[in-house]
Amino acid sequence: MNSKRPFGSEPFSIEVRVYFEDTDAAGVVYYANYLRFMERARTELLRSAGINLGDLATERNLTFVVVDVAVKYLKPARLDDLLWIGVDISSVGRSALVFEQQIRRGGPGGELLCEGTIRAACVSADELKPRPIPKSLFVE
Amino acid sequence: MNSKRPFGSEPFSIEVRVYFEDTDAAGVVYYANYLRFMERARTELLRSAGINLGDLATERNLTFVVVDVAVKYLKPARLDDLLWIGVDISSVGRSALVFEQQIRRGGPGGELLCEGTIRAACVSADELKPRPIPKSLFVE
Amino acid sequence: MNSKRPFGSEPFSIEVRVYFEDTDAAGVVYYANYLRFMERARTELLRSAGINLGDLATERNLTFVVVDVAVKYLKPARLDDLLWIGVDISSVGRSALVFEQQIRRGGPGGELLCEGTIRAACVSADELKPRPIPKSLFVE
Amino acid sequence: MNSKRPFGSEPFSIEVRVYFEDTDAAGVVYYANYLRFMERARTELLRSAGINLGDLATERNLTFVVVDVAVKYLKPARLDDLLWIGVDISSVGRSALVFEQQIRRGGPGGELLCEGTIRAACVSADELKPRPIPKSLFVE
Repeated sequence: MNSKRPFGSEPFSIEVRVYFEDTDAAGVVYYANYLRFMERARTELLRSAGINLGDLATERNLTFVVVDVAVKYLKPARLDDLLWIGVDISSVGRSALVFEQQIRRGGPGGELLCEGTIRAACVSADELKPRPIPKSLFVE
Repeated sequence: MNSKRPFGSEPFSIEVRVYFEDTDAAGVVYYANYLRFMERARTELLRSAGINLGDLATERNLTFVVVDVAVKYLKPARLDDLLWIGVDISSVGRSALVFEQQIRRGGPGGELLCEGTIRAACVSADELKPRPIPKSLFVE
Repeated sequence: MNSKRPFGSEPFSIEVRVYFEDTDAAGVVYYANYLRFMERARTELLRSAGINLGDLATERNLTFVVVDVAVKYLKPARLDDLLWIGVDISSVGRSALVFEQQIRRGGPGGELLCEGTIRAACVSADELKPRPIPKSLFVE
Repeated sequence: MNSKRPFGSEPFSIEVRVYFEDTDAAGVVYYANYLRFMERARTELLRSAGINLGDLATERNLTFVVVDVAVKYLKPARLDDLLWIGVDISSVGRSALVFEQQIRRGGPGGELLCEGTIRAACVSADELKPRPIPKSLFVE
């Protein structure tokens, strides 16, 4: 693994609104749903780099699967919150990527609610066998 | 469509426990999640008839897709409720099935919380094109 | 019920991107998840009218619960699709609202994938007992 | 924290069937959904110890929130798989519990698909403020 950069001052981000579907009877966002929000941000980060996951599977028989997740839940998000979901790629290896992610309330300077490190491996889309990440995907 | 029978006195059923994941900030089961419970019951009804949806797709290139849903929500289900999910096939057509479903609290004689009619069509698993339901699946 | 208007030429709408979380092993959006998309649009329609569901519950002890759903699934949505989710209020009764909803691929002129009629009732947030819709909410 | 025991030879477990709702377009269980399965097992472990989460909130104003999750995804689960979800409590602190969890295909001796360590804190149900775990809950 070749470390690239830490969670930067201006990481890629998306906004996510919290709807009833995301919450649970405790009145807060259900803990597994933060992982859904995080994946939306990773997908948009890749899309912004010209990588479309649907096309990647159809045209090159490649997909990314999450192999490792570590998440800290600091404060709960609630119904109607507008969340800032930041994502940064902290390392690109031969066949895996590491993403650093943060979820904040309101915006990049907002209260930190959740942070996570997610490692995803490149695999064949049909058999989910390990594959090297094509160099064309992440030109350094 | 050839009507078979109404929602019978002893329809096929499964039990579903309500967990935090199923509820929302209103303290009740989120309205879309009743459809997940209903599908679990339909899948187990088919399995009890020897029809495994995974095998059906892999071995015969067939799957069922829902084309029409009508659901009435009468009372809310809540965290920790044990739900009775009943399902009956009310008609088998050339390429579609109609399921009648009920969700009750506690058991078959429990309070009726939700009822629905779901129509599913048989399609090819790869291209989702309409296909006749194989006669071997539902021998009358 | 006092009918207001049909699904108009320029109904309120939101855009929803389809992520892996929304799809299932058939390669399409899971049927219950269209209801999640539809609720996001209803929530934003209410928000655009100055109605915030979280505040409504906290400050006025009111919420809306879905009592009736009828959905037709015409074509499947797929990973990476950008969906147009339209919503219109077709009638406002004493204690219930009826929403007409459409989901199209790409935009308002795109392929119609799914349409639904959803009836929601106004209830107390704490006990879910029927309540009249406050006149201040929907001035005609 | 007072360490109690490692993931035992006969930990508490539940069985979970994989349905379409759990899978994604890659044909496997969506990564966040393993957390839902794990929570079902934790809830049933607590229930088997006489702790009902709904009652705990209503009667004692207590609930547990997840504060930390570390999950390794080893192999994918697929549609129709019957999963064995094991759970063990590895430590009980003043206000937090640590659960060790494993997901295996078929049964306790089946292929290991996923394992995780989940830390949950005891908080007040209304304000989510830290609370000591009542001694009556876990008699050592």
